[in-house]
Amino acid sequence: MEKINIMINGLPGNVAKTMARSGITDNRFNVMPFSLTGQEIEDKTITIDQMRFELVKPDVRDEKIIRIKRQFNSFITIDYTHPTAVNSNALFYTQNQIPFVMGTTGGNREQLEQVVKKSSTPAVIAPNMAKQIVGFQAMMEYAANTFPGLFEGYTLQVSESHQNGKADTSGTAKAMVGYFNQLGANFDVNKIQMVRDPEVQRKEWKIPKEHIAGHGWHTYTLTAPDGSALFEFKHNINGRDIYVSGTFDAVVFLMEKLNKPDDSKKLYTMIDVLNRP
Amino acid sequence: MEKINIMINGLPGNVAKTMARSGITDNRFNVMPFSLTGQEIEDKTITIDQMRFELVKPDVRDEKIIRIKRQFNSFITIDYTHPTAVNSNALFYTQNQIPFVMGTTGGNREQLEQVVKKSSTPAVIAPNMAKQIVGFQAMMEYAANTFPGLFEGYTLQVSESHQNGKADTSGTAKAMVGYFNQLGANFDVNKIQMVRDPEVQRKEWKIPKEHIAGHGWHTYTLTAPDGSALFEFKHNINGRDIYVSGTFDAVVFLMEKLNKPDDSKKLYTMIDVLNRP
Repeated sequence: MEKINIMINGLPGNVAKTMARSGITDNRFNVMPFSLTGQEIEDKTITIDQMRFELVKPDVRDEKIIRIKRQFNSFITIDYTHPTAVNSNALFYTQNQIPFVMGTTGGNREQLEQVVKKSSTPAVIAPNMAKQIVGFQAMMEYAANTFPGLFEGYTLQVSESHQNGKADTSGTAKAMVGYFNQLGANFDVNKIQMVRDPEVQRKEWKIPKEHIAGHGWHTYTLTAPDGSALFEFKHNINGRDIYVSGTFDAVVFLMEKLNKPDDSKKLYTMIDVLNRP
Repeated sequence: MEKINIMINGLPGNVAKTMARSGITDNRFNVMPFSLTGQEIEDKTITIDQMRFELVKPDVRDEKIIRIKRQFNSFITIDYTHPTAVNSNALFYTQNQIPFVMGTTGGNREQLEQVVKKSSTPAVIAPNMAKQIVGFQAMMEYAANTFPGLFEGYTLQVSESHQNGKADTSGTAKAMVGYFNQLGANFDVNKIQMVRDPEVQRKEWKIPKEHIAGHGWHTYTLTAPDGSALFEFKHNINGRDIYVSGTFDAVVFLMEKLNKPDDSKKLYTMIDVLNRP
């Protein structure tokens, strides 16, 4: 099989670095030596596992992309940039007809979707690229729609632990709370217990030392009013490997779509990737 | 609202007793003073919370039921008898046109369903009457059908704790394993870890002392091959209250169906009860 050219945008960010490192050793891909980055980044290049990447800033990207497209006549972009860049990047990709996988969260999501839908450029957009978590969320959504009120009267407790650098509440936890609310368990997202203290993470949560700097652990507990029943759901992710695997699956999925250009649908989610035959 | 007459079969069994005790204090119901029982039972009556029940054995039930039906011109039967009685009881109910809720497990399930489908007697049949567990099983079934292989390569661990008297493996746990297998996690039901030791239940599982004699706790743990992800699902039931509530909901559901006799469907499950508008 021919290798798929991929451009990983968002270097020198941590997630983009992880994607680059894994992409370089993945036989399915040919990682391109360019990465779109923010205007504030001072370095002009970055070297990852002996491969040098040119960092392309917003003020030069319009002319640079012409030369990149001359060199690689077909490629797919992976976007792990910054929430503030989400919408302008999507516009840039669609205007230049660069199919993309967008793993960056934040930005104006509705605008993001509209831009892709109106374009001729296919894209996979997902705030969470971990296939198993996406599948679990789909399960919860199904239950919420099919059995509203099933947990009427139950008390919900939600706690999540992430690396110290993560300031906001887990978006996945917030989405889950929405499903639990539909299922009848009243709960305010502001009551989500956020754990960011490395000591608590190591001692109480027993999170492996090597993942204190990068993890996402979630626990949802439903308790019946009379204490007669307890339901608990956990999804604990260590490191970033699960996101790499999902992102690369999305790239392969997109390539398949590009090879079948009769499909008029342009906007895909990880659910589409999961449902790939 | 008029009270619904209910006949609780299976006294002096523990579950039937629990149903009777709760039924007596439930304003929606009028508990009838009869209970079908096994031929081997020696007592002729049993008193529960000052209410005396006549125990009706198989050899006299055909003539007895004529008199009961004369006394109560409409009633619904709840069956918590014995696995060996499941099929003959269902035949008895349908021949005598007694709508029933069958919570007894075991017997020949296919034959059971056929008997009801061919009859003019509606029935709710469910091996598990806990609505939230049934809903959770439906979620898992949905995931297994929608995302087969989602947990490909994952390792599954299943453990369940029940009161010491329960000899066989949890039927719910076995059903769940079927879904997990479809989801790609290879697992043999014989590997389910069964806990029946009261000391382990108290000390390791922290099951409340008052529920050691009656509980069902289940834990399913999925681990990614590289240890990067763990998913865990628990459902812990203490006592029998959750089954009482589900059984009584099934009775009310059946009463609604009886009031709409145009419906040609006769066989219902707890999913139908859950989906009640």
